[in-house]
Amino acid sequence: MQLQQRLKILQSGLEDHQGLVLARPADIQYLTGFKTITSNERETFLVVTKKSVTLLYPSFSPVEKIVGIDYFAGHWPNDLKKVITDASNHVSDSQEHKQRVTDWQADLSALFADEYELISNIKHTKWQTFSRDKIWQLRQIKDHQELQLFRAANQITLQTVKLLQAKLKIGMSEIEVAHEFEYSAKKLGATELAFPSVIAFGAHSALPHHQPTKTVLEPEQVVLIDVGARVDGYCADLTRTIWFGNNPDQQFLEIKNIVDTAYELAADQVKPEVFAADVDGAARKFIDDAGYGHQFIHSTGHGLGLEIHEPPSLFMNSTQKLRKNMLVTVEPGIYLDGRFGYRYENTITVST
Amino acid sequence: MQLQQRLKILQSGLEDHQGLVLARPADIQYLTGFKTITSNERETFLVVTKKSVTLLYPSFSPVEKIVGIDYFAGHWPNDLKKVITDASNHVSDSQEHKQRVTDWQADLSALFADEYELISNIKHTKWQTFSRDKIWQLRQIKDHQELQLFRAANQITLQTVKLLQAKLKIGMSEIEVAHEFEYSAKKLGATELAFPSVIAFGAHSALPHHQPTKTVLEPEQVVLIDVGARVDGYCADLTRTIWFGNNPDQQFLEIKNIVDTAYELAADQVKPEVFAADVDGAARKFIDDAGYGHQFIHSTGHGLGLEIHEPPSLFMNSTQKLRKNMLVTVEPGIYLDGRFGYRYENTITVST
Repeated sequence: MQLQQRLKILQSGLEDHQGLVLARPADIQYLTGFKTITSNERETFLVVTKKSVTLLYPSFSPVEKIVGIDYFAGHWPNDLKKVITDASNHVSDSQEHKQRVTDWQADLSALFADEYELISNIKHTKWQTFSRDKIWQLRQIKDHQELQLFRAANQITLQTVKLLQAKLKIGMSEIEVAHEFEYSAKKLGATELAFPSVIAFGAHSALPHHQPTKTVLEPEQVVLIDVGARVDGYCADLTRTIWFGNNPDQQFLEIKNIVDTAYELAADQVKPEVFAADVDGAARKFIDDAGYGHQFIHSTGHGLGLEIHEPPSLFMNSTQKLRKNMLVTVEPGIYLDGRFGYRYENTITVST
Repeated sequence: MQLQQRLKILQSGLEDHQGLVLARPADIQYLTGFKTITSNERETFLVVTKKSVTLLYPSFSPVEKIVGIDYFAGHWPNDLKKVITDASNHVSDSQEHKQRVTDWQADLSALFADEYELISNIKHTKWQTFSRDKIWQLRQIKDHQELQLFRAANQITLQTVKLLQAKLKIGMSEIEVAHEFEYSAKKLGATELAFPSVIAFGAHSALPHHQPTKTVLEPEQVVLIDVGARVDGYCADLTRTIWFGNNPDQQFLEIKNIVDTAYELAADQVKPEVFAADVDGAARKFIDDAGYGHQFIHSTGHGLGLEIHEPPSLFMNSTQKLRKNMLVTVEPGIYLDGRFGYRYENTITVST
């Protein structure tokens, strides 16, 4: 799907007097191709009306312009006010009468409170919340090109993790393993990492979001590797947990078997029209029945794409159904506090 | 300065009935030591009253607890409401009368509009904007430990750039150079990069925020390297621009000489009590006089620390004075559109 088509779908939901302000970097990349350089600094706003699309972006940044978008190199907050005021005054005569853009929606989950305060005080404008459902309905279903980028990221991740496992040796630190992953993945074509790598030795593996430390690898230890490459924005997410040594702890083997089976049961459910909660349920019931329910302390998976966490979330209270060409992780785990954890994860394309 | 001392200074500005909600990851690291894992996902909120400090953080995340802070492993938005409600109801009797916390300030530049909408509707609370000046007054002046971390980051950056310049060879892509910088800097102890590296060959060097591409290095080209290592959060920022080859363009040498002198003039001004605008002025006047004023398209520098862009900004309209132990970049540049650019940059500690 071309970017212009995505914009058209969004615009088709607007009346002549309605406008939209988006600010989430991944939305903006999805709709315009513009890649934010530093995601924790505000770089862009996208202002959409029935008749116009304006991208406000920093003048120093590289931009590949596409047809149908007005590019405004400027500075917020003042230029944001200007772009919205201009778009408000843009008089349409499509329906044989003059129409100003008065009714605005803003993505309140992406605009900072001071930004929203500023724009919502612009004269002759009324504001309400943009429902992110509209854009998630689009972004959740990946098109051919998106799936290709994901597959490239996933392939790089798989290959790099294999290389990494072969390279593990006594005395390497978690941080060194993380650096090796990053360097090798980028050598293979990753443009970035999808998220900060989780490399956890021994008891660290019992904390799902452990961050790499200087702790060094010792014989007969668990090694948990949860990593992802990113290609042109699209994320992969993969976890492998191994016993480093020849004498695995018996309980490690026990939880490994349970989680591996739970994974298979859940992965089998990943099909169009299945409820996300049922995918979670398949893994959770098996782990519960095996007596480790309280040690499975997170949901079974999550959607991903231009962001590492997107809808649908595969959790027990979800009411969402899976649909064809969604991308979801399946990642059950069991965590024995102070000893070790085991998680197994792949990212799966929802298909029949 | 200990974290607790920083918190005490912040609390000393509050009355018994006042509270504060912060959400900016760098503020939270500065005040509590907690390091956000993924800066583009909301992980923490800090709720501060005269008598209490509560950090709301994700239960999966590693946390090093410090004395004087209550840690609440939970989920926003609901738990944020709970933490604020609890703090509101926290009755103090310090002044021999019971006092609820009713008057709240929130950092509107860090809270998303929907988050602010949620908390500002909590019963019996009044809200106003937290003035970030209060925290910038603290964060701008670096203490001994912060300067040490910066120096480590700066040292790694300098050393890595030297190595990198020696490694440059025909056929390497901008992306490869960027990967080499990252890998080598991390080998030397960088915990992260301070910002996405700018590696620009040839005409790309005329765009200050160019991002690395697959373009390969050719003989007799400009190479601009603008990079920074980060150590435990603290950023370094350094730019070197070289002519790769033996026959430098005459105009390249001309702008190099002008910028190098402008750098020296500006760097000489970096002293306590000097106006930031005068540092900018020193570089700008020299470049203006040399006839390249219109090609010096950005400010002369910026503060940095836990973030890559902090106050003070060294720009012409600043009214701020430099103070001892601020950290600022000095980075004049001249950009000849379609041909090449030249920028020279170091980060300087403000001292007598």
